[in-house]
Amino acid sequence: MEQKLLSQLSQEARAALYNETKAAYDAFAAQKLQLNMARGNPSPEQLALTMPMMNTLSADDSLISETGADCRNYGVPGGILEVRTLFADLLGVPADEVFAAGNSSLQLMFNCFQIAYVHGIAGCTPWSQLDNVKFLCPVPGYDRHFAVANYFGFEMIPIPMLADGPDMDMVAKYVESDESVKGIWCVPIYANPTGVVFSDAVVRRFASLKPAAQDFRIFWDNAYFLHHIVENPVTPLRITDACKEFGSEDMVYQFVSTSKVTFAGAGIAAVTMSKANLAQFSRDMGIQTIGFDKINQLRHARFFGNAEGVKEHMKLHAAILKPKFDVVIELLEQELKPLGLGTWSAPQGGYFISYQAPNGCAKRIVQLCKDAGVTLTPAGATYPGGKDPDDSNIRIAPTYPSVDVLRKTMELFCLCVKLAALEKIES
Amino acid sequence: MEQKLLSQLSQEARAALYNETKAAYDAFAAQKLQLNMARGNPSPEQLALTMPMMNTLSADDSLISETGADCRNYGVPGGILEVRTLFADLLGVPADEVFAAGNSSLQLMFNCFQIAYVHGIAGCTPWSQLDNVKFLCPVPGYDRHFAVANYFGFEMIPIPMLADGPDMDMVAKYVESDESVKGIWCVPIYANPTGVVFSDAVVRRFASLKPAAQDFRIFWDNAYFLHHIVENPVTPLRITDACKEFGSEDMVYQFVSTSKVTFAGAGIAAVTMSKANLAQFSRDMGIQTIGFDKINQLRHARFFGNAEGVKEHMKLHAAILKPKFDVVIELLEQELKPLGLGTWSAPQGGYFISYQAPNGCAKRIVQLCKDAGVTLTPAGATYPGGKDPDDSNIRIAPTYPSVDVLRKTMELFCLCVKLAALEKIES
Repeated sequence: MEQKLLSQLSQEARAALYNETKAAYDAFAAQKLQLNMARGNPSPEQLALTMPMMNTLSADDSLISETGADCRNYGVPGGILEVRTLFADLLGVPADEVFAAGNSSLQLMFNCFQIAYVHGIAGCTPWSQLDNVKFLCPVPGYDRHFAVANYFGFEMIPIPMLADGPDMDMVAKYVESDESVKGIWCVPIYANPTGVVFSDAVVRRFASLKPAAQDFRIFWDNAYFLHHIVENPVTPLRITDACKEFGSEDMVYQFVSTSKVTFAGAGIAAVTMSKANLAQFSRDMGIQTIGFDKINQLRHARFFGNAEGVKEHMKLHAAILKPKFDVVIELLEQELKPLGLGTWSAPQGGYFISYQAPNGCAKRIVQLCKDAGVTLTPAGATYPGGKDPDDSNIRIAPTYPSVDVLRKTMELFCLCVKLAALEKIES
Repeated sequence: MEQKLLSQLSQEARAALYNETKAAYDAFAAQKLQLNMARGNPSPEQLALTMPMMNTLSADDSLISETGADCRNYGVPGGILEVRTLFADLLGVPADEVFAAGNSSLQLMFNCFQIAYVHGIAGCTPWSQLDNVKFLCPVPGYDRHFAVANYFGFEMIPIPMLADGPDMDMVAKYVESDESVKGIWCVPIYANPTGVVFSDAVVRRFASLKPAAQDFRIFWDNAYFLHHIVENPVTPLRITDACKEFGSEDMVYQFVSTSKVTFAGAGIAAVTMSKANLAQFSRDMGIQTIGFDKINQLRHARFFGNAEGVKEHMKLHAAILKPKFDVVIELLEQELKPLGLGTWSAPQGGYFISYQAPNGCAKRIVQLCKDAGVTLTPAGATYPGGKDPDDSNIRIAPTYPSVDVLRKTMELFCLCVKLAALEKIES
């Protein structure tokens, strides 16, 4: 039978489809599944890839870093040289522009906010003393980014994500005309959740911004720069290289971590920034800690050996993740494309597939999934304040479940999309 | 020859003593020593005690916590149950009043400041919005505590440390009459640097305070509660028990860590607080991190097994540290007591010996030591803003050097005290 778009179906055909879909949905619900796909967590299979690292440092090993620092003792607040060098080589920046910390890059982002808020940066007024601070938020985007800006009480301005990055005309207009615009969140490759990879032109436009505020900063969350699932991925121009062209090195904070390389709970996070920025950041961080866990830094550095070791390790992740992304796309193509129900990303890496439901259906789809035992990221979470104006975007996190469970979950998901779309037409 | 007090010596005797002392000092300086006693760092010998922990978790071990959480993955923001239970048992508080974090208790203290500063606590105005915030600082005290209060721009009010704790009449007067007094720093046992152990009466007076400010908090840095060097130490009443008597549980944040139990750079820090306080703290911390390093938490919990395991481990530290404290006291008694030069603490634990030099001599003594190759904690560091009104207190940190080096260092120290005192008399 040739499939028609849902919008072209007769009322009878829609009724038949509804009944058939509802019956399949009820059968799912009766299984009382308990699946959680709310977050982008690595799977146990991925975590197992790093188990050999648990043997990297034993009681017989020296825990002295190559510069002679005893990793067991206090000190070395910006991280040991070997782990700074590892990040530096991966990112193409000098090791003395890397600050390696604990297990959370989110915490480093928060620290950058906190320093600007309490002390001010670049000699400017602390953000706590300003009546209004605005942050640009490409949407759909990462809920935890928005939560940080919201925590400090900043106004969040949604910026549409286009196919090659944020709408840079809009970004430039805000940044260059409004001194209260102090920052923008960016995930330059495999953006959360859209999977968008910034084009070189977009990266150059970022680097060439002439902000009205001297303390405007680009929060460049390079969370997925190593997380390809294809062999020859398209990767963006390095923001650090682009900034060198334009002399705008002080405008960018770049964040990375090994959370989705080694252990999500016990990796190493780092921030890279210009030497001028790093001088203040290091001084201010020195107020709150004597130093981060250098033994775990050493463990990581010795486990990988060098940047090449990290890249090889990421191929093992890709081999696990690729089939999961494939099954999501396969089900969406098979079940929803013929009916013309929504659009979706097909990223070359990262942790998410972004699904755009027919307008006004996202919340209902997530609810239907939940009622049948599958928890998704809440609809709207990818927008500041949880408010998706179209009630359309749903973030699909395919990494944690097994391929079999994921297939089942996506079958359910597609049923829920159909039901929600049919309900909407009838309403 | 019977020794007279320096003040009773004739001018000739003083000149002879000066020449003899100066010659000994010059001989020291000629050795061009490079010793650093500025910080309270554990020695390599102490760090070696924990090396077996490097084998506690291997690639063959399950990294699943007793509640089923995978320690390798994201989540469990307040720490895994086994490590919270460990701290709970050591501190005599319920496990659900413990928040176990990363490697730095200082960072947890800072976080408490930051939350009150940005969001406010207990429904009160954020401290960032107040014209004046005052913090009480028992002196001499810990320079890093003062640095945190200073970072946020708070006014620091020195409170004299008496033999049994801070001057509680003065504390009560400030806390109960002035709404802008928002906190006090306390190290209740083996205070840094005085070694003072708070008496039960002092602890009860803290618990019975009726602060003018609803968001007044006692920052109870219990850094040395496990760090005895004698067998049957006098320990203070638990602040948490005292607060229960007075219904003042919300008034206290208690901080601890294993930095000087396991590894100074790679231990586990925790904060204990009332359930009401913890609810806000957890929520606010959830903005900046998805969770701390649970693998290191699990490593610690499994290494020790239980609270008894920690206490046994601390006896090994005591065996290393006792002779170091002894040699410091021995040299001070032998070289300075007969001359009546200064007074000092003889603590039953902790990391420091506090030396009160003749007034106006501390800076000169530290300088003389430095010129001869021994770096001490800067004179004045134990006072807010680095200003010791009497220029008298010097913090001696005996833990890091070997006993032999420490003896040598203390010989030099005593020479420097004599020289500084003689110079002062002549001036």
